[in-house]
Amino acid sequence: MQVEVRVKLKEQVLDPQGEAIRRVLAGLGYAEVGQVRVGKLMLLEVGGDDPGAVRARVEAACREVLANPVIEEFEVRLP
Amino acid sequence: MQVEVRVKLKEQVLDPQGEAIRRVLAGLGYAEVGQVRVGKLMLLEVGGDDPGAVRARVEAACREVLANPVIEEFEVRLP
Repeated sequence: MQVEVRVKLKEQVLDPQGEAIRRVLAGLGYAEVGQVRVGKLMLLEVGGDDPGAVRARVEAACREVLANPVIEEFEVRLP
Repeated sequence: MQVEVRVKLKEQVLDPQGEAIRRVLAGLGYAEVGQVRVGKLMLLEVGGDDPGAVRARVEAACREVLANPVIEEFEVRLP
């Protein structure tokens, strides 16, 4: 099944990339855009029929390697 | 309102970052993970009450600067 992993910086962590995007947008006239936060979207094709088991494995992979627990938080979404 | 912009590589574009992640996961025992594709997740705080107008503006920003139309496709999601 197709599993979506969303990795975002924790709220309290500064996001200079997002701030740079906000400034570029403001310079182009998109003044209505306020805060911008940039994260990663990973789409994994994962074998297995049991959604609970697949979720547990992907969450383990997030903790082990896909996300940095010091500054990032992750969310796993199944179809 | 909080607007989500999803930027993904087009299907026909190779994703070496995703392939590297797949290989690392396989080496760690996650053999059930097949293809991995990596995209960007941008969360924008956008002023305005009219969802249609907000969507149109954010899509314009995507075409202008947030996505590379040669290799990427984008999707705008409103709350």
